[in-house]
Amino acid sequence: MIARASDAGWPRSAAVIGLGLVGGSLARELAARGTRVVGWDASACAVHAALGDGVLAGAAPPPFHAVEGVDVVVLAVPVTAAPGLLEQLAPRLARVPLVTDVGSTKRAVVAAAERLGLGERFVGAHPMAGDHRAGWAASRLALFAGARVHLTPTPRTGADALARAEALWSALGAEVARADPMEHDRRLAWASHLPHTAAAALGLTMACAGTTPDELGPGGRDATRLAASDPDLWTAVALENADLLAPAVAELERHLREWREAMERGDARALRELFARSRAWKAGA
Amino acid sequence: MIARASDAGWPRSAAVIGLGLVGGSLARELAARGTRVVGWDASACAVHAALGDGVLAGAAPPPFHAVEGVDVVVLAVPVTAAPGLLEQLAPRLARVPLVTDVGSTKRAVVAAAERLGLGERFVGAHPMAGDHRAGWAASRLALFAGARVHLTPTPRTGADALARAEALWSALGAEVARADPMEHDRRLAWASHLPHTAAAALGLTMACAGTTPDELGPGGRDATRLAASDPDLWTAVALENADLLAPAVAELERHLREWREAMERGDARALRELFARSRAWKAGA
Repeated sequence: MIARASDAGWPRSAAVIGLGLVGGSLARELAARGTRVVGWDASACAVHAALGDGVLAGAAPPPFHAVEGVDVVVLAVPVTAAPGLLEQLAPRLARVPLVTDVGSTKRAVVAAAERLGLGERFVGAHPMAGDHRAGWAASRLALFAGARVHLTPTPRTGADALARAEALWSALGAEVARADPMEHDRRLAWASHLPHTAAAALGLTMACAGTTPDELGPGGRDATRLAASDPDLWTAVALENADLLAPAVAELERHLREWREAMERGDARALRELFARSRAWKAGA
Repeated sequence: MIARASDAGWPRSAAVIGLGLVGGSLARELAARGTRVVGWDASACAVHAALGDGVLAGAAPPPFHAVEGVDVVVLAVPVTAAPGLLEQLAPRLARVPLVTDVGSTKRAVVAAAERLGLGERFVGAHPMAGDHRAGWAASRLALFAGARVHLTPTPRTGADALARAEALWSALGAEVARADPMEHDRRLAWASHLPHTAAAALGLTMACAGTTPDELGPGGRDATRLAASDPDLWTAVALENADLLAPAVAELERHLREWREAMERGDARALRELFARSRAWKAGA
């Protein structure tokens, strides 16, 4: 179901800064529902393509005059770039009722919004959609259908902005969940940033051993799929969430050592226990 | 294309010992092509179901008299059980032109075959098919279509047995590759056994952190999919290939530590380099 632009609260106009997989897909969804979308990206190619595809009604180059007066501004840049971008945009946001983002970490951008006096109208958002592909060319409709989207309001978030953010994501078919920014970053360190790091480390380990991707079976291909993710994006996430992610990586190292030491001493019972505990978790038991 | 039983070299009769995902699927393929299949499994339920489904023409309980005189005997049991089973079967195999298996490690079973005087007629096989499901209920036709199957002949393997094994797997749509048993076990430690161990360790790490599978996005689900694999099967593989797998796990630990230390010192350049090297590998660059 495509919501119409005349629905209550649906944005008539939007600015999307960052036209990669997630920002580009969001721009497509908005435009497909009649919203007038302007946008910008560090890649001139992406802007050109988004204009050419008829998704953008106009470009919104720095110093971002075009964002003044739109109904929603979306930051869709790497998480380490978002606070600086928000600072650049701040003078243009006086009449914008919803400012939001799509980053995988939320503490820094929410803190920046509050520091800049945008707390009431800023709602941090993290759609758990997207995949290992990147850029405008990978963006598409229906990316968010069925995806979980974490919203991270704080006590300073206004009810109007929160309602607008929830209406936006719900209309795109996403399942909206709310979390405190700190709790979000902590949980996602384990549920998302850790598997990305693990898949990348697994890929590099195979690379160093001379194993090529075409030697993998279906299981090995799945386990390393996230190794193909955008290095810039994930460097930003790993840096931004380092205080919570590094301890999670240390725990994975510890468990791998348990497996390895059980192998080294030929301990069938310990190995079986380890594999069985992991399977029980995966099975939801 | 379904090969007919009258094709040159196609087995008229077969015995499959072990009716799990791989053994069961192979029994189904053979039966679907007109081969008379007998079989056995430690699970009476599996034998009952395979007879009931019309795949088995008869049971082949210990001491395995039913395998005498068939055209091919397939061992499809956990790799640590295969050498002992081969020893039990050996007195019945005098007239069997092809004895083979489907295990993920090859050194031990090939060595057992040669020790038992079966070297000329034994061809080790490892189909890289199957998934995280297990048991007769998960077995199915077309499991091997497009899959790579490693055959591990030695200088003692007879040309007739090898030709029969290649014809069998080729007829099922598999891509046959040959490797020395040691080289097979070394390469598979990295390409298959390591991702299984990594996915299992990742699952257990999340379990300990209180992360539930329903918190995962598509990437986290893929990275942990192999955590659902059969603990008995993978305990056997990890034990059997421990001398080659433990060093691979140590290398993965080392790379995770590189990522973690780069996070801890806030080293964007090092993180970007790590993620980029892994992506270059995954992209085949």
